[in-house]
Amino acid sequence: MRILSGIQPSGRLHIGNYFGMMEPSIRLQDEGEAYYFIADYHALTSTHDPAALRENVRNLAIDFLACGLDPGKATFWRQSDVPEVTELAWILSCVTPMGLLERAVSYKDKVSQGLSPSHGLFAYPVLQAADILIFDSNVVPVGRDQKQHLEVTRDIAQKFNDRYGEGLLVIPEPRIREETAMVPGLDGRKMSKSYDNAIDLFEETEKKLRSKIMKIVTDSTPVEASKDPEESYIVQLYRLFATPDEVAEMEASFRAGGQGYGHYKQQLFEHVRDHFAPMRERREALLKDAAYIDDVLAEGAKKAHAQARRTMDRVRAAVGM
Amino acid sequence: MRILSGIQPSGRLHIGNYFGMMEPSIRLQDEGEAYYFIADYHALTSTHDPAALRENVRNLAIDFLACGLDPGKATFWRQSDVPEVTELAWILSCVTPMGLLERAVSYKDKVSQGLSPSHGLFAYPVLQAADILIFDSNVVPVGRDQKQHLEVTRDIAQKFNDRYGEGLLVIPEPRIREETAMVPGLDGRKMSKSYDNAIDLFEETEKKLRSKIMKIVTDSTPVEASKDPEESYIVQLYRLFATPDEVAEMEASFRAGGQGYGHYKQQLFEHVRDHFAPMRERREALLKDAAYIDDVLAEGAKKAHAQARRTMDRVRAAVGM
Repeated sequence: MRILSGIQPSGRLHIGNYFGMMEPSIRLQDEGEAYYFIADYHALTSTHDPAALRENVRNLAIDFLACGLDPGKATFWRQSDVPEVTELAWILSCVTPMGLLERAVSYKDKVSQGLSPSHGLFAYPVLQAADILIFDSNVVPVGRDQKQHLEVTRDIAQKFNDRYGEGLLVIPEPRIREETAMVPGLDGRKMSKSYDNAIDLFEETEKKLRSKIMKIVTDSTPVEASKDPEESYIVQLYRLFATPDEVAEMEASFRAGGQGYGHYKQQLFEHVRDHFAPMRERREALLKDAAYIDDVLAEGAKKAHAQARRTMDRVRAAVGM
Repeated sequence: MRILSGIQPSGRLHIGNYFGMMEPSIRLQDEGEAYYFIADYHALTSTHDPAALRENVRNLAIDFLACGLDPGKATFWRQSDVPEVTELAWILSCVTPMGLLERAVSYKDKVSQGLSPSHGLFAYPVLQAADILIFDSNVVPVGRDQKQHLEVTRDIAQKFNDRYGEGLLVIPEPRIREETAMVPGLDGRKMSKSYDNAIDLFEETEKKLRSKIMKIVTDSTPVEASKDPEESYIVQLYRLFATPDEVAEMEASFRAGGQGYGHYKQQLFEHVRDHFAPMRERREALLKDAAYIDDVLAEGAKKAHAQARRTMDRVRAAVGM
């Protein structure tokens, strides 16, 4: 079973990214043949600064490896090191009805957000289909709100097979990610870089991490009064890091009253710090070992490239090239 | 000065294709560095039969060489042997506003003709831009009605240079093809495969060529009466093959009367036959020498590929890859 995931290099990662995407991906590498890539072709639709793109790609590679991506288990590469995906994207474009792309939710969303639409943004689902199909992927993990993306890929693959021969492209199945609790940001809204409410996965210093956590919005319940743990973003975040017993203890203390929010924030801070401590340590080592990162990505690209070549030989022969 | 032309492999060539595209291209190979390719990626937007596509590509290569394309002067290759164009097309898509493509005349035309639009048809101008820009082309010969296509390419190149650096892509200039007399088909309308009024460049036999020419539509003026040469498709076609003296002679004879149309058709037939005789002979030889065709295309692909690689190295570095 081959599991494919593409991750956009869009800047520093935060805790929401970690629980939403990295941690589940890392768990999946034990379940099948994991194929994970850094989607830099896709990033061109939003990142127009070459230095930023290079840095984002590199940081994503380092962070992913620091968090436990194991290049001995997973194939991990930079999308633009396997340019065959763009060739498949063109071929797939010729079987993709315009209507399918015009109905794509993410394009419509971006336009309605006032983004000036480029053709890249519009054609995005076709490149995404090529990413998935070129590796004969069986399973693609998606959030509940991303199911439509994979539907488009399945439609395109089926249209190609209908025209050129059944079984030429593997039709992938979605794996809906089990509902991870929504990760709240400092202000309680979903953690997001664009809301400026994020706790970075790797804040520069412990002090910065602590001061971020101290900024979590709370109400003005007095220290001695009982507090509702269900209403607190501190507790919501704590659940991601603490054991069930520790969570129960904090909840009981909330209800009992007698502690200020600063006390709980300190507890949360210590858990966050300790949770990421080993990853931070690995990250420090990786930051000093540029050659290792290059080697991992080169090795991944080699493996991914061989698989892409096999699919393209089959596809090119089928269409008459 | 590099001159670029792409030719779609869309089936047997007719005399209209010859005078409209092949003959001018062949003349241009003495004026600059000619880069000519067989546009099989583009053909996927309309040819869905792999065997037909392969045959059309091969026939176009043979016919072009038979008609005088000189691989010692021109670089001649099959588009899909240099897949880097699809990579550049993706990168250009990210600087191409949707509006530019939505306004493209050829897409709107095809939709209004009832063609069910694929994304390939819509994205066609971006691939065309990549074809031109990846080879640092200076000059692109276009018909008067195709000027908009090159405008789109120039716009896209300028947008790329604006974003990533002036001079990265060479902005090509159009070379408007001198007005070749419209080549009429058997029924007087523009010669076109879709009107079923075409004389093939290489009819299978002399007899078939003659019988086609005998079908040219004429009026019912009696043999002895004077005829208006300006109204005759025979004369219009004859002008493409005969010397000015010969044309003047036929025109005088038309006005004098006394000859039936069959007589003039016979004269036209002989000229067409003789004009293409040496090309037909070369074609017969080429048809027997598959290895030579393969060699020419492989050699062309090698040269084109080296140039494409240089541009892509520059482009990839500029966008941050």
